[in-house]
Amino acid sequence: MSSISPEDDAKRKEFYERLARSALSPLWLSLAALVTRQPSSGLKAAMWSYADCRALLMEAGGLVSVEEAERRVLVLENSAFPGQSRITTSLYAGLQLVLPGERARSHRHSQSALRFVLEGTGAYTAVGGERTPMYPGDFIITPSWEWHDHGNDTPDPVIWLDGLDIPLVQALDTSFMEQLGQIEQPVLRPAGDSLARFGANLLPVDHRPTGLTSPVFSYPYARTREALDTLRRNGEPDACHGYKMRFVNPVTGGFAMPTIGTFMQLLPRGFASGPYRSTDATVFTPVEGEGRSQIGEQILEWSARDVFVVPSWATVRHLASSDAVLFSFSDRPVQLATGLFREERIQ
Amino acid sequence: MSSISPEDDAKRKEFYERLARSALSPLWLSLAALVTRQPSSGLKAAMWSYADCRALLMEAGGLVSVEEAERRVLVLENSAFPGQSRITTSLYAGLQLVLPGERARSHRHSQSALRFVLEGTGAYTAVGGERTPMYPGDFIITPSWEWHDHGNDTPDPVIWLDGLDIPLVQALDTSFMEQLGQIEQPVLRPAGDSLARFGANLLPVDHRPTGLTSPVFSYPYARTREALDTLRRNGEPDACHGYKMRFVNPVTGGFAMPTIGTFMQLLPRGFASGPYRSTDATVFTPVEGEGRSQIGEQILEWSARDVFVVPSWATVRHLASSDAVLFSFSDRPVQLATGLFREERIQ
Amino acid sequence: MSSISPEDDAKRKEFYERLARSALSPLWLSLAALVTRQPSSGLKAAMWSYADCRALLMEAGGLVSVEEAERRVLVLENSAFPGQSRITTSLYAGLQLVLPGERARSHRHSQSALRFVLEGTGAYTAVGGERTPMYPGDFIITPSWEWHDHGNDTPDPVIWLDGLDIPLVQALDTSFMEQLGQIEQPVLRPAGDSLARFGANLLPVDHRPTGLTSPVFSYPYARTREALDTLRRNGEPDACHGYKMRFVNPVTGGFAMPTIGTFMQLLPRGFASGPYRSTDATVFTPVEGEGRSQIGEQILEWSARDVFVVPSWATVRHLASSDAVLFSFSDRPVQLATGLFREERIQ
Amino acid sequence: MSSISPEDDAKRKEFYERLARSALSPLWLSLAALVTRQPSSGLKAAMWSYADCRALLMEAGGLVSVEEAERRVLVLENSAFPGQSRITTSLYAGLQLVLPGERARSHRHSQSALRFVLEGTGAYTAVGGERTPMYPGDFIITPSWEWHDHGNDTPDPVIWLDGLDIPLVQALDTSFMEQLGQIEQPVLRPAGDSLARFGANLLPVDHRPTGLTSPVFSYPYARTREALDTLRRNGEPDACHGYKMRFVNPVTGGFAMPTIGTFMQLLPRGFASGPYRSTDATVFTPVEGEGRSQIGEQILEWSARDVFVVPSWATVRHLASSDAVLFSFSDRPVQLATGLFREERIQ
Repeated sequence: MSSISPEDDAKRKEFYERLARSALSPLWLSLAALVTRQPSSGLKAAMWSYADCRALLMEAGGLVSVEEAERRVLVLENSAFPGQSRITTSLYAGLQLVLPGERARSHRHSQSALRFVLEGTGAYTAVGGERTPMYPGDFIITPSWEWHDHGNDTPDPVIWLDGLDIPLVQALDTSFMEQLGQIEQPVLRPAGDSLARFGANLLPVDHRPTGLTSPVFSYPYARTREALDTLRRNGEPDACHGYKMRFVNPVTGGFAMPTIGTFMQLLPRGFASGPYRSTDATVFTPVEGEGRSQIGEQILEWSARDVFVVPSWATVRHLASSDAVLFSFSDRPVQLATGLFREERIQ
Repeated sequence: MSSISPEDDAKRKEFYERLARSALSPLWLSLAALVTRQPSSGLKAAMWSYADCRALLMEAGGLVSVEEAERRVLVLENSAFPGQSRITTSLYAGLQLVLPGERARSHRHSQSALRFVLEGTGAYTAVGGERTPMYPGDFIITPSWEWHDHGNDTPDPVIWLDGLDIPLVQALDTSFMEQLGQIEQPVLRPAGDSLARFGANLLPVDHRPTGLTSPVFSYPYARTREALDTLRRNGEPDACHGYKMRFVNPVTGGFAMPTIGTFMQLLPRGFASGPYRSTDATVFTPVEGEGRSQIGEQILEWSARDVFVVPSWATVRHLASSDAVLFSFSDRPVQLATGLFREERIQ
Repeated sequence: MSSISPEDDAKRKEFYERLARSALSPLWLSLAALVTRQPSSGLKAAMWSYADCRALLMEAGGLVSVEEAERRVLVLENSAFPGQSRITTSLYAGLQLVLPGERARSHRHSQSALRFVLEGTGAYTAVGGERTPMYPGDFIITPSWEWHDHGNDTPDPVIWLDGLDIPLVQALDTSFMEQLGQIEQPVLRPAGDSLARFGANLLPVDHRPTGLTSPVFSYPYARTREALDTLRRNGEPDACHGYKMRFVNPVTGGFAMPTIGTFMQLLPRGFASGPYRSTDATVFTPVEGEGRSQIGEQILEWSARDVFVVPSWATVRHLASSDAVLFSFSDRPVQLATGLFREERIQ
Repeated sequence: MSSISPEDDAKRKEFYERLARSALSPLWLSLAALVTRQPSSGLKAAMWSYADCRALLMEAGGLVSVEEAERRVLVLENSAFPGQSRITTSLYAGLQLVLPGERARSHRHSQSALRFVLEGTGAYTAVGGERTPMYPGDFIITPSWEWHDHGNDTPDPVIWLDGLDIPLVQALDTSFMEQLGQIEQPVLRPAGDSLARFGANLLPVDHRPTGLTSPVFSYPYARTREALDTLRRNGEPDACHGYKMRFVNPVTGGFAMPTIGTFMQLLPRGFASGPYRSTDATVFTPVEGEGRSQIGEQILEWSARDVFVVPSWATVRHLASSDAVLFSFSDRPVQLATGLFREERIQ
């Protein structure tokens, strides 16, 4: 850009002030930051150690009163966006602790939520009149605008990872929320009903979907693990992904949730994945195993139940030092629906 | 229509003859038969007793030489269309016997085929490099234009019901067929691979479908039965269908086959279904149980492994005298794709 | 097949007779004819000269009484299927004459119909409360199960080509038909309404389609011709098709009708198309120009308003001796929906 | 919430500080702001007077050097988000001035852009080798990741409204941008080619879409206006929308752009629309006419070429004091794809 005389500079400043008073701003000053050559949010690769987080969560369990219990969540906040409750630019993640005997009141909201169970057996999530038990490794959905509640009737604490599309819903300005009058929704059907009804490669003959979310709202780990084991026994791993599957909505074959893509992958012991990058910043949590991931220049050493995040378009390589299974989620369904998704296997 | 003078009549006849020589015909003589007030193919409701058919099939086993073995099928022919090898206007059905030690050469064809196992355990069907074992009640697909072969390595005969879209493919004039050079396709993956890979509410992360048929080509009865039992335990039966599910292609949520819809329904003992009719003439075969069906004015008494057919738009009522499970198939996917499907619950 | 002893032969005959009495037939005798290596319906390439047909149609105009007028159609019958009122295995075609002052009663039926205007200006077709005028080259739809009627208020006869899916609807056994109580449906909107409402690359903001057929039911030739001219000015012709477009349903981008694909193509003077074959037997009628088409070994010389048919999988080459525009239709939408369509450019 | 002792309060503060050091934050402090009962971005209803903006834009024309010309845009910035270059939470809008003789270099970016021409005739936008002329009221698309450039070869200034999905692309962190080596892309086809090729209710017979954006990238106002006039002549206005249409991608029938919905509506003189609200904050610009809109408690008086914005879930009523035509755009396609869209006609 050519140099500008002090006089011109002053003129421009005065002009910009007048613009501001008319709610206008000069694009020539901001364009370079708005339309960038590559993803440029500044999102940081980062990891949260489960051991550390668990200790703080337990401490919170002592500090936060019963009334506040339904919010006993520690938000995993990307340091690039302090105070914004986001782990990526479009997604929220948090660790939730439910102590023995606690129950959350039934409510519903526009935001889609996933729960990925990290610790404890025997809590439940209720959706659509069905209470599903929660075991480590289970992927559970509380769909947009469906009543949901949960509780822990066991003597042990339960901890899960929450994933929500809160920042995306903010960007679209479409948040709605309601409390159900009663504390808990009535239980209408036994556990396992939705899985049998919708998840056995059959659908009720006249089923008409009422939303975009999978009616199978609980994907038990045992079944997922078995599928991954079969893939492993029967073929070679993908160079960049190992054995990787995405959870699907059986009514459409699309993603299980309209705004959040969810995945599970198995990396055999010693497997080193080839460099790969994609535009969907992704949150990972290992279910089993240990390893490390190189993200750009950064190296993260992880073991089971840690949580780490890979920014958009950062090159990632995983190395599994034992057989490892990783759950992950991102906003890929939105990127695909808008034509904005890109991915690259780097040679 | 007004009466016509003999002179005019002669004129017309001469005219019609001249038309015929020009490959023309007068619509006013045929329209009433072409565009009818209601489905009018003349298809008959009919039943084939398994016991009778089995005896004839065994007799055929003795008559038909080894070279002919791969065609050892008795076609269930609707008496309304003699010599046309169709059980409905658009579908073919046959009973196939595979004797111990027999194998069929690998081939492929445009026609989509289903196999519904009636008797015998331990035969296999091979598709896409996977051999799936065949047990009674299993629904197995040999998809359009995929290599397939089968064999029976057990000491007992195996019998299944074949369902194909042969008449539809004739109507569209799109038949292709090829023999594979070798007798059998190589086995690339163990049994159960496709079910784990595509049927566990997960899909391989980069899966792109290559056809319109479900990559899950074997739907084991055990799993289907369990889903039906769950529905039964957890809710009331549909007045017309009992507990009825359709088999789905997990990649799309649509029908498992592009031309043939397949269904399984459970009718509890004593259940009498309300009158219902639909435009998709349907082939039924009970897997378990006994009962009778009223189809129009006709009553058919059935037990396990019989086969019966309900014509388009015929009113049907089922009465189950014991817990009964019925498999059925029809051309519903084509009727839905073309906007021609109708159904009615009759009050 | 190995030779059979007279004794065995007699045994088999007796067995076949017993089978027939049980509505069974031996597949080993019919399989080769049912599942063929290539399309094998026996459909013939054929042409109907407009001049000849027109003379016969006018003669019919004198013979057929007023009461029969609404059926004053000469069916173009493929000689491979005498008495079956089909021009291809799945489609019907006929030439319809409407004399001055004649009107057809309003009715509706499951069958989808197209009208391609060959001669005369000023007749109308009414659909959905709108009467569209009919000019030569216009492609007009009377959608499945929508009320339609027509009339000719001009002093000249009007002739069009009818195309219907009658044989397909027979194969699916889904024919329904109703007469409207009154002779004509009321006119609710002026001509051109549906084209402006749905055909200007805009849709009413809350439009929800009620069927699978294009709500634009009249595609005027002037507009179609202009689009073809633009393609011709701006690029090279396709080696096999010249400049060829398909009519679309603007609500979906799919075919204008769910069962019949419709096309218009421009072949510049002297253009000789490369050999091509496809599984959708196709009916052609030139709107303008002259030329000849080689279909297999057969050569047909055509000029405007003749009608000719190309069978499934027959190799076709067109040679245009003047600038020529050809309208054509086939069952391609059904073949695509069922995965049965194939085409090949032959090198 | 129960009151907290000073001691507990101190404990909590210390705890929160430790959390912050671990990149964690307590959800119980932020949840109410994250998941709100209603859309709560704080976006303001606002209007920009064209006369005022035009004067400032001309002034900018004098201030901003030739090198900066391609960015001579005044961003319409919602006062709720100062410095963020957004008119709604997900969309960007700006007024662009192109002076006689100016040209913009060819580039491409992930962001989808629309141009709505406000003043001047004879500038052009080039996309895909075609230069489309720009007239007032024309809606023009520069699709995601397609090369585009523009210029003004006339003696008069040209001004248009830019609409982009910049904030959405930021939220998804998927921005890519490239400059073409050469200044302008070569002209491969004359103006009007894409409209004839894709916009005449026909598509090239073998067309396969390469993206999610309409291949018709210019929707001339003359044609849009004519469609609206036809609707007006032939029926009653919608109580909330008058005569309102959405621009469509003729290849799919969906929105013309994957991230931005575009609409045009005609409000007859004296028409007062019923109260309506929707979750897609919408930018309006009148093409013709005058009127006022009540948005919540605020009233905006507008005339042609002003720009105003209606926030998510704000109730809006329009009153047209003359025949008025309004162009508008919003992120509705994204809201529909994610299941987040809501609208309400308020009784």
